[in-house]
Amino acid sequence: MSQQLVNSIKYLIRLTEEEESLLPTLFNRVTLKKNEYFLQEGKVSGHVAFIEKGLAGYVMTHNGEDVHFYFSRENEWVGNYESFLSRQPSTKSIIALEPSVLWTISKENLQKVFDTVKEGDRMGRLIIEDVFVKSSKQLTSLYTGTPEERYHEFFELFQDIQHRVPQYMIASFIGVKPQSLSRIRSRMANKH
Amino acid sequence: MSQQLVNSIKYLIRLTEEEESLLPTLFNRVTLKKNEYFLQEGKVSGHVAFIEKGLAGYVMTHNGEDVHFYFSRENEWVGNYESFLSRQPSTKSIIALEPSVLWTISKENLQKVFDTVKEGDRMGRLIIEDVFVKSSKQLTSLYTGTPEERYHEFFELFQDIQHRVPQYMIASFIGVKPQSLSRIRSRMANKH
Repeated sequence: MSQQLVNSIKYLIRLTEEEESLLPTLFNRVTLKKNEYFLQEGKVSGHVAFIEKGLAGYVMTHNGEDVHFYFSRENEWVGNYESFLSRQPSTKSIIALEPSVLWTISKENLQKVFDTVKEGDRMGRLIIEDVFVKSSKQLTSLYTGTPEERYHEFFELFQDIQHRVPQYMIASFIGVKPQSLSRIRSRMANKH
Repeated sequence: MSQQLVNSIKYLIRLTEEEESLLPTLFNRVTLKKNEYFLQEGKVSGHVAFIEKGLAGYVMTHNGEDVHFYFSRENEWVGNYESFLSRQPSTKSIIALEPSVLWTISKENLQKVFDTVKEGDRMGRLIIEDVFVKSSKQLTSLYTGTPEERYHEFFELFQDIQHRVPQYMIASFIGVKPQSLSRIRSRMANKH
Protein backbone atom coordinates (compact mmCIF):
# COMPACT_ATOMS: atom_id res chain seq x y z
CA MET A 1 0.00 0.00 0.00
CA SER A 2 1.23 3.39 -0.88
CA GLN A 3 2.04 5.51 2.15
CA GLN A 4 1.44 8.49 -0.14
CA LEU A 5 -2.18 7.41 -0.70
CA VAL A 6 -2.74 6.83 3.02
CA ASN A 7 -1.27 10.24 3.81
CA SER A 8 -3.46 11.88 1.21
CA ILE A 9 -6.54 10.26 2.78
CA LYS A 10 -5.40 11.17 6.30
CA TYR A 11 -5.09 14.76 5.18
CA LEU A 12 -8.87 14.70 4.65
CA ILE A 13 -10.18 12.40 7.38
CA ARG A 14 -9.22 10.47 10.51
CA LEU A 15 -8.53 6.77 10.09
CA THR A 16 -8.56 4.17 12.85
CA GLU A 17 -5.77 1.60 12.85
CA GLU A 18 -8.23 -1.00 11.62
CA GLU A 19 -9.30 1.21 8.75
CA GLU A 20 -5.71 1.89 7.85
CA SER A 21 -5.14 -1.83 7.48
CA LEU A 22 -8.42 -2.39 5.61
CA LEU A 23 -7.67 0.19 2.93
CA PRO A 24 -4.68 -1.58 1.28
CA THR A 25 -6.93 -4.55 0.48
CA LEU A 26 -9.29 -2.34 -1.53
CA PHE A 27 -6.81 -0.75 -3.95
CA ASN A 28 -4.68 -2.21 -6.74
CA ARG A 29 -1.34 -0.85 -7.88
CA VAL A 30 -1.28 -0.26 -11.63
CA THR A 31 1.62 1.04 -13.69
CA LEU A 32 1.02 2.70 -17.03
CA LYS A 33 3.55 3.38 -19.74
CA LYS A 34 3.51 6.73 -21.53
CA ASN A 35 0.49 6.90 -23.89
CA GLU A 36 -1.21 3.89 -22.28
CA TYR A 37 -4.93 4.20 -21.53
CA PHE A 38 -6.36 4.33 -18.04
CA LEU A 39 -9.82 4.56 -19.61
CA GLN A 40 -10.76 4.32 -23.27
CA GLU A 41 -13.61 6.25 -24.91
CA GLY A 42 -16.55 3.89 -25.42
CA LYS A 43 -15.70 1.62 -22.47
CA VAL A 44 -17.51 1.70 -19.13
CA SER A 45 -15.30 3.11 -16.39
CA GLY A 46 -14.91 0.47 -13.69
CA HIS A 47 -12.32 2.26 -11.56
CA VAL A 48 -11.19 5.57 -10.24
CA ALA A 49 -7.60 5.98 -9.11
CA PHE A 50 -5.16 7.91 -6.99
CA ILE A 51 -2.02 9.01 -8.86
CA GLU A 52 1.10 8.20 -6.87
CA LYS A 53 3.40 9.30 -9.67
CA GLY A 54 2.93 10.60 -13.19
CA LEU A 55 0.47 12.61 -15.22
CA ALA A 56 -2.84 11.78 -16.89
CA GLY A 57 -4.65 13.65 -19.65
CA TYR A 58 -8.37 13.69 -20.46
CA VAL A 59 -9.14 13.55 -24.19
CA MET A 60 -12.28 13.57 -26.31
CA THR A 61 -12.57 13.02 -30.04
CA HIS A 62 -14.38 15.74 -31.96
CA ASN A 63 -14.65 15.74 -35.77
CA GLY A 64 -11.73 13.35 -35.88
CA GLU A 65 -9.54 15.60 -33.75
CA ASP A 66 -8.37 15.09 -30.18
CA VAL A 67 -9.62 17.65 -27.68
CA HIS A 68 -7.56 17.82 -24.50
CA PHE A 69 -9.55 19.31 -21.68
CA TYR A 70 -8.05 18.32 -18.35
CA PHE A 71 -4.91 17.04 -16.65
CA SER A 72 -4.33 15.25 -13.34
CA ARG A 73 -0.98 14.82 -11.68
CA GLU A 74 0.51 13.01 -8.66
CA ASN A 75 -1.52 13.19 -5.43
CA GLU A 76 -4.73 13.77 -7.35
CA TRP A 77 -7.61 11.46 -8.19
CA VAL A 78 -8.38 10.53 -11.75
CA GLY A 79 -11.41 8.97 -13.43
CA ASN A 80 -14.61 9.57 -15.34
CA TYR A 81 -17.09 9.72 -12.49
CA GLU A 82 -19.98 10.12 -14.92
CA SER A 83 -19.33 6.74 -16.55
CA PHE A 84 -18.20 5.20 -13.25
CA LEU A 85 -21.48 6.03 -11.47
CA SER A 86 -23.91 5.44 -14.32
CA ARG A 87 -22.09 2.46 -15.90
CA GLN A 88 -22.57 4.17 -19.26
CA PRO A 89 -19.78 4.07 -21.87
CA SER A 90 -17.27 6.85 -21.36
CA THR A 91 -17.36 9.79 -23.78
CA LYS A 92 -13.71 10.55 -23.05
CA SER A 93 -10.39 8.77 -22.72
CA ILE A 94 -7.85 9.12 -19.95
CA ILE A 95 -4.25 8.57 -21.05
CA ALA A 96 -0.94 8.47 -19.21
CA LEU A 97 1.15 11.40 -20.49
CA GLU A 98 4.15 10.10 -18.53
CA PRO A 99 5.02 6.70 -17.08
CA SER A 100 2.62 6.60 -14.12
CA VAL A 101 1.86 4.67 -10.95
CA LEU A 102 -1.81 4.56 -9.98
CA TRP A 103 -3.76 3.01 -7.12
CA THR A 104 -7.10 1.97 -8.59
CA ILE A 105 -10.31 1.19 -6.74
CA SER A 106 -13.44 -0.48 -8.12
CA LYS A 107 -16.97 0.79 -7.61
CA GLU A 108 -17.71 -2.06 -5.19
CA ASN A 109 -14.63 -1.34 -3.11
CA LEU A 110 -15.23 2.40 -3.11
CA GLN A 111 -18.73 1.67 -1.82
CA LYS A 112 -17.06 -0.45 0.87
CA VAL A 113 -14.97 2.59 1.87
CA PHE A 114 -18.14 4.69 2.10
CA ASP A 115 -19.95 2.00 4.09
CA THR A 116 -17.26 0.75 6.47
CA VAL A 117 -14.75 3.58 6.97
CA LYS A 118 -16.33 5.86 9.59
CA GLU A 119 -15.48 9.06 7.74
CA GLY A 120 -15.49 7.46 4.28
CA ASP A 121 -18.41 9.52 3.04
CA ARG A 122 -16.67 12.65 4.27
CA MET A 123 -13.59 11.72 2.27
CA GLY A 124 -15.78 11.22 -0.80
CA ARG A 125 -17.57 14.50 -0.22
CA LEU A 126 -14.34 16.47 0.15
CA ILE A 127 -12.73 14.94 -2.95
CA ILE A 128 -15.81 15.55 -5.08
CA GLU A 129 -16.28 19.08 -3.74
CA ASP A 130 -12.79 19.82 -4.97
CA VAL A 131 -13.24 18.39 -8.47
CA PHE A 132 -16.70 19.94 -8.75
CA VAL A 133 -15.38 23.41 -7.98
CA LYS A 134 -12.63 22.99 -10.59
CA SER A 135 -15.14 21.74 -13.15
CA SER A 136 -17.45 24.71 -12.42
CA LYS A 137 -14.61 27.18 -12.90
CA GLN A 138 -13.71 25.58 -16.18
CA LEU A 139 -17.33 25.69 -17.32
CA THR A 140 -17.50 29.38 -16.47
CA SER A 141 -14.36 30.22 -18.39
CA LEU A 142 -15.50 28.19 -21.41
CA TYR A 143 -18.73 30.17 -21.56
CA THR A 144 -17.27 33.60 -21.10
CA GLY A 145 -13.50 33.46 -21.35
CA THR A 146 -11.35 34.91 -24.10
CA PRO A 147 -8.34 32.81 -25.19
CA GLU A 148 -6.21 35.03 -22.93
CA GLU A 149 -8.45 34.29 -19.95
CA ARG A 150 -8.43 30.59 -20.80
CA TYR A 151 -4.64 30.66 -20.98
CA HIS A 152 -4.59 32.37 -17.61
CA GLU A 153 -6.88 29.64 -16.29
CA PHE A 154 -4.56 26.95 -17.59
CA PHE A 155 -1.84 28.55 -15.51
CA GLU A 156 -4.03 28.84 -12.45
CA LEU A 157 -4.86 25.13 -12.59
CA PHE A 158 -1.66 23.68 -14.02
CA GLN A 159 1.25 26.07 -13.48
CA ASP A 160 3.31 23.40 -11.70
CA ILE A 161 3.00 21.02 -14.66
CA GLN A 162 3.22 23.50 -17.55
CA HIS A 163 6.48 22.04 -18.81
CA ARG A 164 5.17 18.49 -18.62
CA VAL A 165 2.17 19.14 -20.90
CA PRO A 166 2.86 19.30 -24.66
CA GLN A 167 2.15 22.67 -26.29
CA TYR A 168 -0.55 21.32 -28.62
CA MET A 169 -2.47 20.00 -25.62
CA ILE A 170 -2.33 23.40 -23.93
CA ALA A 171 -3.64 24.96 -27.15
CA SER A 172 -6.42 22.37 -27.22
CA PHE A 173 -7.35 23.10 -23.59
CA ILE A 174 -7.58 26.80 -24.42
CA GLY A 175 -9.54 26.09 -27.56
CA VAL A 176 -7.15 27.59 -30.12
CA LYS A 177 -4.92 26.20 -32.86
CA PRO A 178 -1.33 25.49 -31.75
CA GLN A 179 -0.04 28.32 -33.96
CA SER A 180 -2.28 30.80 -32.10
CA LEU A 181 -0.74 29.90 -28.76
CA SER A 182 2.50 31.77 -29.38
CA ARG A 183 0.54 34.88 -30.49
CA ILE A 184 -1.45 34.76 -27.24
CA ARG A 185 1.79 34.34 -25.33
CA SER A 186 3.46 37.36 -26.91
CA ARG A 187 0.32 39.50 -26.46
CA MET A 188 0.31 38.56 -22.79
CA ALA A 189 4.05 39.13 -22.42
CA ASN A 190 3.66 42.64 -23.90
CA LYS A 191 1.07 43.48 -21.27
CA HIS A 192 3.43 42.73 -18.38
CA MET B 1 -40.01 22.96 8.07
CA SER B 2 -40.81 21.80 4.63
CA GLN B 3 -41.89 18.18 4.51
CA GLN B 4 -40.72 18.26 0.91
CA LEU B 5 -37.16 19.06 2.01
CA VAL B 6 -37.21 16.33 4.66
CA ASN B 7 -38.52 13.82 2.12
CA SER B 8 -35.84 14.81 -0.34
CA ILE B 9 -33.15 14.25 2.31
CA LYS B 10 -34.74 10.97 3.42
CA TYR B 11 -34.59 9.80 -0.18
CA LEU B 12 -30.79 9.99 0.12
CA ILE B 13 -30.08 9.00 3.73
CA ARG B 14 -31.64 7.65 6.92
CA LEU B 15 -32.56 10.20 9.58
CA THR B 16 -33.15 9.47 13.26
CA GLU B 17 -36.11 11.17 14.93
CA GLU B 18 -33.70 13.50 16.70
CA GLU B 19 -32.02 14.46 13.45
CA GLU B 20 -35.39 15.07 11.85
CA SER B 21 -36.19 17.57 14.57
CA LEU B 22 -32.72 19.17 14.46
CA LEU B 23 -32.85 19.90 10.73
CA PRO B 24 -35.67 22.50 10.81
CA THR B 25 -33.59 24.68 13.09
CA LEU B 26 -30.78 24.85 10.50
CA PHE B 27 -32.74 26.08 7.47
CA ASN B 28 -34.54 29.35 6.75
CA ARG B 29 -37.56 29.74 4.51
CA VAL B 30 -37.02 32.46 1.89
CA THR B 31 -39.46 33.56 -0.77
CA LEU B 32 -38.24 35.28 -3.92
CA LYS B 33 -40.29 37.26 -6.39
CA LYS B 34 -39.69 36.75 -10.09
CA ASN B 35 -36.37 38.36 -11.13
CA GLU B 36 -35.18 38.67 -7.54
CA TYR B 37 -31.58 37.60 -6.81
CA PHE B 38 -30.70 34.58 -4.71
CA LEU B 39 -27.04 35.47 -5.28
CA GLN B 40 -25.57 38.50 -7.01
CA GLU B 41 -22.36 38.48 -9.09
CA GLY B 42 -19.55 40.02 -7.03
CA LYS B 43 -21.02 39.02 -3.64
CA VAL B 44 -19.74 36.13 -1.54
CA SER B 45 -22.22 33.27 -1.47
CA GLY B 46 -23.22 32.67 2.15
CA HIS B 47 -25.95 30.09 1.54
CA VAL B 48 -27.00 27.17 -0.57
CA ALA B 49 -30.68 26.30 -0.80
CA PHE B 50 -33.26 23.64 -1.53
CA ILE B 51 -35.97 24.77 -3.94
CA GLU B 52 -39.41 23.87 -2.63
CA LYS B 53 -41.19 25.67 -5.44
CA GLY B 54 -40.08 27.70 -8.44
CA LEU B 55 -37.19 28.00 -10.84
CA ALA B 56 -33.75 29.59 -10.62
CA GLY B 57 -31.41 30.60 -13.44
CA TYR B 58 -27.61 30.94 -13.37
CA VAL B 59 -26.31 33.99 -15.24
CA MET B 60 -22.89 35.46 -16.00
CA THR B 61 -22.09 38.78 -17.62
CA HIS B 62 -19.80 38.61 -20.64
CA ASN B 63 -18.98 41.66 -22.78
CA GLY B 64 -22.02 43.39 -21.32
CA GLU B 65 -24.32 40.52 -22.27
CA ASP B 66 -26.06 38.01 -20.01
CA VAL B 67 -24.98 34.41 -20.48
CA HIS B 68 -27.48 31.89 -19.11
CA PHE B 69 -25.83 28.58 -18.44
CA TYR B 70 -27.88 26.57 -15.95
CA PHE B 71 -31.32 26.19 -14.43
CA SER B 72 -32.53 24.59 -11.20
CA ARG B 73 -36.12 23.74 -10.39
CA GLU B 74 -38.16 22.48 -7.45
CA ASN B 75 -36.66 19.58 -5.45
CA GLU B 76 -33.15 20.57 -6.53
CA TRP B 77 -30.37 22.36 -4.71
CA VAL B 78 -29.15 25.73 -5.85
CA GLY B 79 -26.04 27.76 -5.10
CA ASN B 80 -22.57 28.72 -6.19
CA TYR B 81 -20.53 26.13 -4.32
CA GLU B 82 -17.28 27.64 -5.61
CA SER B 83 -17.94 30.97 -3.89
CA PHE B 84 -19.67 29.29 -0.93
CA LEU B 85 -16.64 27.12 -0.10
CA SER B 86 -13.86 29.57 -0.88
CA ARG B 87 -15.63 32.73 0.36
CA GLN B 88 -14.53 34.41 -2.86
CA PRO B 89 -16.90 36.80 -4.68
CA SER B 90 -19.24 34.97 -7.00
CA THR B 91 -18.56 35.22 -10.74
CA LYS B 92 -22.21 34.46 -11.48
CA SER B 93 -25.67 35.49 -10.35
CA ILE B 94 -28.57 33.24 -9.45
CA ILE B 95 -31.99 34.73 -10.17
CA ALA B 96 -35.54 33.54 -9.55
CA LEU B 97 -37.16 33.04 -12.96
CA GLU B 98 -40.50 32.43 -11.24
CA PRO B 99 -41.85 33.29 -7.79
CA SER B 100 -39.95 30.77 -5.67
CA VAL B 101 -39.83 29.27 -2.19
CA LEU B 102 -36.35 28.26 -1.01
CA TRP B 103 -34.98 26.70 2.17
CA THR B 104 -31.55 28.24 2.67
CA ILE B 105 -28.73 26.96 4.85
CA SER B 106 -25.56 28.81 5.88
CA LYS B 107 -22.06 27.37 5.66
CA GLU B 108 -21.91 27.01 9.45
CA ASN B 109 -25.20 25.15 9.60
CA LEU B 110 -24.32 22.92 6.65
CA GLN B 111 -21.13 22.03 8.50
CA LYS B 112 -23.34 21.21 11.49
CA VAL B 113 -25.31 18.80 9.27
CA PHE B 114 -22.04 17.16 8.16
CA ASP B 115 -20.77 16.97 11.76
CA THR B 116 -23.88 15.96 13.71
CA VAL B 117 -26.21 14.10 11.34
CA LYS B 118 -24.88 10.55 11.21
CA GLU B 119 -25.18 10.25 7.42
CA GLY B 120 -24.78 13.98 6.77
CA ASP B 121 -21.56 13.56 4.83
CA ARG B 122 -23.22 10.87 2.73
CA MET B 123 -26.03 13.28 1.90
CA GLY B 124 -23.45 15.90 0.89
CA ARG B 125 -21.52 13.39 -1.17
CA LEU B 126 -24.60 12.18 -3.06
CA ILE B 127 -25.85 15.71 -3.80
CA ILE B 128 -22.44 16.84 -5.04
CA GLU B 129 -21.91 13.66 -7.07
CA ASP B 130 -25.11 14.50 -8.89
CA VAL B 131 -24.25 18.13 -9.66
CA PHE B 132 -20.68 17.21 -10.55
CA VAL B 133 -21.82 14.66 -13.13
CA LYS B 134 -24.19 17.24 -14.66
CA SER B 135 -21.43 19.81 -14.74
CA SER B 136 -19.02 17.34 -16.38
CA LYS B 137 -21.56 16.50 -19.08
CA GLN B 138 -22.09 20.17 -19.77
CA LEU B 139 -18.33 20.74 -19.97
CA THR B 140 -18.00 17.89 -22.47
CA SER B 141 -20.74 19.21 -24.70
CA LEU B 142 -19.32 22.73 -24.59
CA TYR B 143 -15.96 21.45 -25.80
CA THR B 144 -17.21 19.21 -28.53
CA GLY B 145 -20.91 19.79 -29.12
CA THR B 146 -22.49 21.33 -32.20
CA PRO B 147 -25.44 23.67 -31.54
CA GLU B 148 -27.72 20.72 -32.37
CA GLU B 149 -26.02 18.57 -29.76
CA ARG B 150 -26.19 21.40 -27.26
CA TYR B 151 -29.89 21.79 -27.96
CA HIS B 152 -30.31 18.07 -27.46
CA GLU B 153 -28.47 18.42 -24.16
CA PHE B 154 -30.77 21.19 -23.05
CA PHE B 155 -33.65 18.79 -23.57
CA GLU B 156 -31.92 16.00 -21.74
CA LEU B 157 -31.36 18.19 -18.70
CA PHE B 158 -34.41 20.44 -18.80
CA GLN B 159 -37.17 18.83 -20.87
CA ASP B 160 -39.68 19.11 -18.01
CA ILE B 161 -39.12 22.87 -17.71
CA GLN B 162 -38.68 23.77 -21.39
CA HIS B 163 -41.84 25.89 -21.42
CA ARG B 164 -40.86 27.70 -18.24
CA VAL B 165 -37.51 28.94 -19.62
CA PRO B 166 -37.63 31.96 -21.97
CA GLN B 167 -36.40 31.27 -25.53
CA TYR B 168 -33.51 33.74 -25.35
CA MET B 169 -32.17 31.93 -22.28
CA ILE B 170 -32.30 28.59 -24.10
CA ALA B 171 -30.39 30.20 -26.98
CA SER B 172 -27.85 31.54 -24.51
CA PHE B 173 -27.43 28.10 -22.90
CA ILE B 174 -26.78 26.61 -26.34
CA GLY B 175 -24.43 29.43 -27.23
CA VAL B 176 -26.29 30.80 -30.26
CA LYS B 177 -28.18 34.00 -31.02
CA PRO B 178 -31.95 33.78 -30.36
CA GLN B 179 -32.66 34.03 -34.11
CA SER B 180 -30.54 30.91 -34.73
CA LEU B 181 -32.62 28.84 -32.34
CA SER B 182 -35.58 28.50 -34.70
CA ARG B 183 -33.23 27.45 -37.54
CA ILE B 184 -31.77 24.73 -35.31
CA ARG B 185 -35.28 23.67 -34.37
CA SER B 186 -36.44 23.33 -37.97
CA ARG B 187 -33.24 21.50 -38.98
CA MET B 188 -33.83 19.04 -36.16
CA ALA B 189 -37.54 18.68 -37.00
CA ASN B 190 -36.65 17.84 -40.62
CA LYS B 191 -34.40 15.03 -39.46
CA HIS B 192 -37.22 13.23 -37.62
